[in-house]
Amino acid sequence: MASQAVTPQSEDFSKWYNEIVYKAEMAAHSPVRGCPIIMPYGYELWEFIRDGLDRRFKATGHRNAYFPLFIPESYLKREAQHVEGFSPELAVVTIAGGKELEEPLVVRPTSETIIGEAFSQWIQSYRDLPLLLNQWANVVRWELRTRPFLRTTEFLWQEGHTAHATEADAEAETLQMLDIYAELAIDDAAIPVIKGRKSDSEKFAGALRTYSIEAMMGDTKALQAGTSHNLGQNFAKAFNIQYVDENNAQQFCWTTSWGMSTRMVGAIIMAHGDDKGLRLPPKVAPYQVVVVPIFRDDTQKATVFDAASRIKRELYDAGIRVHMDNRDGVSSGFKFNDWEMRGVPVRLEIGPKDIENNTAVLARRDMPGKEGKQFVPQGELVARVKTLLDDVQANMLKQATEFRDANTHDVSSYGELRELVEAGGWARGWWAGSAADEKKIKDETGATIRCFPFDQPGGTGKCLYTGETAQEIAIFSKAY
Amino acid sequence: MASQAVTPQSEDFSKWYNEIVYKAEMAAHSPVRGCPIIMPYGYELWEFIRDGLDRRFKATGHRNAYFPLFIPESYLKREAQHVEGFSPELAVVTIAGGKELEEPLVVRPTSETIIGEAFSQWIQSYRDLPLLLNQWANVVRWELRTRPFLRTTEFLWQEGHTAHATEADAEAETLQMLDIYAELAIDDAAIPVIKGRKSDSEKFAGALRTYSIEAMMGDTKALQAGTSHNLGQNFAKAFNIQYVDENNAQQFCWTTSWGMSTRMVGAIIMAHGDDKGLRLPPKVAPYQVVVVPIFRDDTQKATVFDAASRIKRELYDAGIRVHMDNRDGVSSGFKFNDWEMRGVPVRLEIGPKDIENNTAVLARRDMPGKEGKQFVPQGELVARVKTLLDDVQANMLKQATEFRDANTHDVSSYGELRELVEAGGWARGWWAGSAADEKKIKDETGATIRCFPFDQPGGTGKCLYTGETAQEIAIFSKAY
Repeated sequence: MASQAVTPQSEDFSKWYNEIVYKAEMAAHSPVRGCPIIMPYGYELWEFIRDGLDRRFKATGHRNAYFPLFIPESYLKREAQHVEGFSPELAVVTIAGGKELEEPLVVRPTSETIIGEAFSQWIQSYRDLPLLLNQWANVVRWELRTRPFLRTTEFLWQEGHTAHATEADAEAETLQMLDIYAELAIDDAAIPVIKGRKSDSEKFAGALRTYSIEAMMGDTKALQAGTSHNLGQNFAKAFNIQYVDENNAQQFCWTTSWGMSTRMVGAIIMAHGDDKGLRLPPKVAPYQVVVVPIFRDDTQKATVFDAASRIKRELYDAGIRVHMDNRDGVSSGFKFNDWEMRGVPVRLEIGPKDIENNTAVLARRDMPGKEGKQFVPQGELVARVKTLLDDVQANMLKQATEFRDANTHDVSSYGELRELVEAGGWARGWWAGSAADEKKIKDETGATIRCFPFDQPGGTGKCLYTGETAQEIAIFSKAY
Repeated sequence: MASQAVTPQSEDFSKWYNEIVYKAEMAAHSPVRGCPIIMPYGYELWEFIRDGLDRRFKATGHRNAYFPLFIPESYLKREAQHVEGFSPELAVVTIAGGKELEEPLVVRPTSETIIGEAFSQWIQSYRDLPLLLNQWANVVRWELRTRPFLRTTEFLWQEGHTAHATEADAEAETLQMLDIYAELAIDDAAIPVIKGRKSDSEKFAGALRTYSIEAMMGDTKALQAGTSHNLGQNFAKAFNIQYVDENNAQQFCWTTSWGMSTRMVGAIIMAHGDDKGLRLPPKVAPYQVVVVPIFRDDTQKATVFDAASRIKRELYDAGIRVHMDNRDGVSSGFKFNDWEMRGVPVRLEIGPKDIENNTAVLARRDMPGKEGKQFVPQGELVARVKTLLDDVQANMLKQATEFRDANTHDVSSYGELRELVEAGGWARGWWAGSAADEKKIKDETGATIRCFPFDQPGGTGKCLYTGETAQEIAIFSKAY
């Protein structure tokens, strides 16, 4: 059973990631380039992310709709920056129903264009605003280099699309949705993301301003885990999304779009994993507790399975996601390692001794060895497991926050930035450079401006690169 | 506001359907042929169907996964009947990332082939069986004639795919999933579907046996609302899905697949609608209750809105899906008609008189006029609304069942069948004919065998067409 061993993160983080994704059965290979199969264990994690977002979207007045997968090629061309950004990545249907199509259909890489067209039909008056829609969908971007969850040709996501009467309304919506992404990441996925504004060179093709949440992965690289775009009037003008205001004057709308994708599954894997494998935050873990029965012979097995099944049922009835590992032919030790590798937050062990003592053992994934183990009276299991799941959730966020803070450093010169990026970590410093300066830094160090964080020191400072007076600090890092 | 009026069903059922779908904002036109936009009111109905199914799938041990949208063209060709069935309807991606693809990719019309390939990799031993998966996905079939929800080029569905050790296990799974579809249809959608087996000419391309649930629409035509296929070993042989049994012998698996789609939204519209518009069963209705405040002037408005908002909040807090219509500039009468057209099961009216009496009016959509109205003390509203929603749900199923039974007739000759099909309705009779006989009947009358219902009289009878001894009765009808 040595096949379950994983390359240590310290040896090769990238290799660790690829191995763990397949060994933990988050994903599986498929015959289609760049499109791995999302296995139940990965899909269920996504379901919890999806449900967490969907609940928050609905609570803020958004409604779900569904727009076509196919977009007429001509639509994509209407917003100039947009088509320039996406055209190299398109998959195009040219034949359908046995015939060549008159106009090729693009498989949506994102839906601003087709939704913009619909908005132009639906919106007439200020009374129709704001229009707050979201769709859960698959999208396709023909990427050259793909990695499961992080960058795949097809991926699952939600894309919110809204229209507003004023720039202020659109900006407020853009920021509200960024807050929701941050809340999901921090509260549910235990990832202490940084909210901020993207630089002009990193913003969405066609947006006025793009905001993102940036997460630090276990190798200190950054990952953009969600984006929210104030599209200004760019798409409104390209698609003629107009409304009549209260003074009977024709106005262009202000629109926004925002998205989070299955990439978040990759973020959770890389933010929390360790050398033993995955570590899943309880709120999004498909299994929160795994029950491992321990026995030596068939007599013991019968008694232990009986107690383990009863406990499993009790936890299940209390709304805890619990799995019992009743596999034959593998040792308890193998099962322990296997579930550690799969990142289940809490392991419940029960053997003949425990049954005698009317106890069970709870072992938490976020604390190795004896420190993380406790003997618990069986009658208290439900309550103790619930508390423990809360503790693990909180501790994982704490650990990730400490890790992020320990690997984020202020830099005041390009030399310092280079050194830091080389050594690994996020560099935070004053910035007043140009897009060309950014590009040079990217070419020379591999690092990009991840964002101008909302959390700013205030005042001004000296740009780390140009020496000019800067209004803002930026965070630089290599990124996924 | 006459635009909200709908063509009566009796005048033109098909026109009624198309009008109501767009007027009730279930769907909207899109620029892509055969791919209407699913609007929030239609999508939310779908969400309740989806959640109702998903819960039942999980309770019976199925797990969700996600397989690629694209299928290599060669895969589809491996199962001979399958490719013959689907190839005329395929949309094909030939260009991606700016280049012509070496092997074209088909946009999935269904996923037996790519999932079959995955199963062949994953299944080794009898210990891996049964393998019970489901996926929620969009699929594309290039249809010549499309209608919103009923037959669209792209549609949303779930497709379950399972593998088993024996034919008996596969058959039990196939029937279990048909039961789940029937339960969803009857208990949630209030549609009294008939479970049965499809004739050989109507079965799924590549299946051993196909079972379906058949629903009667308001024009007495049939609609196939869900199908469950025992695929035998056909796909297992085409994709080499084998396992080693307990005696160490290599065996082919037995596989199943089963699906229900957004077509079910169309079924609900057509099974329950009347001349005034939609009638939605409370369990799947996006809004179960609409609150309409009634007032003459601004003073009244303030008081009434106050009370209406409080009541709305009370219903919402009790878990009832409630919407308050606070539109300005439209009359209460317009609002009544509008929500009747949109099929909201219960309307709650509240005006100055009601406030004086500390009451409100509840009006049920399934009972017109005074009979369906009641005055209710405000303190009892939550309880009374809950009971009323249950009553409406039960009554809608009762109405639909009576309608189905009143329009189903036994026939013992082809003449009777022709007459009945002409007049409208389902014809039930003994059948021992051939596929050629079926085709002749279809060509001559437009009716097909909808199913051999599970509910059989027993014994044998004389075939209505050939006069030979028949083992089963069949249901004939025109169908969507």
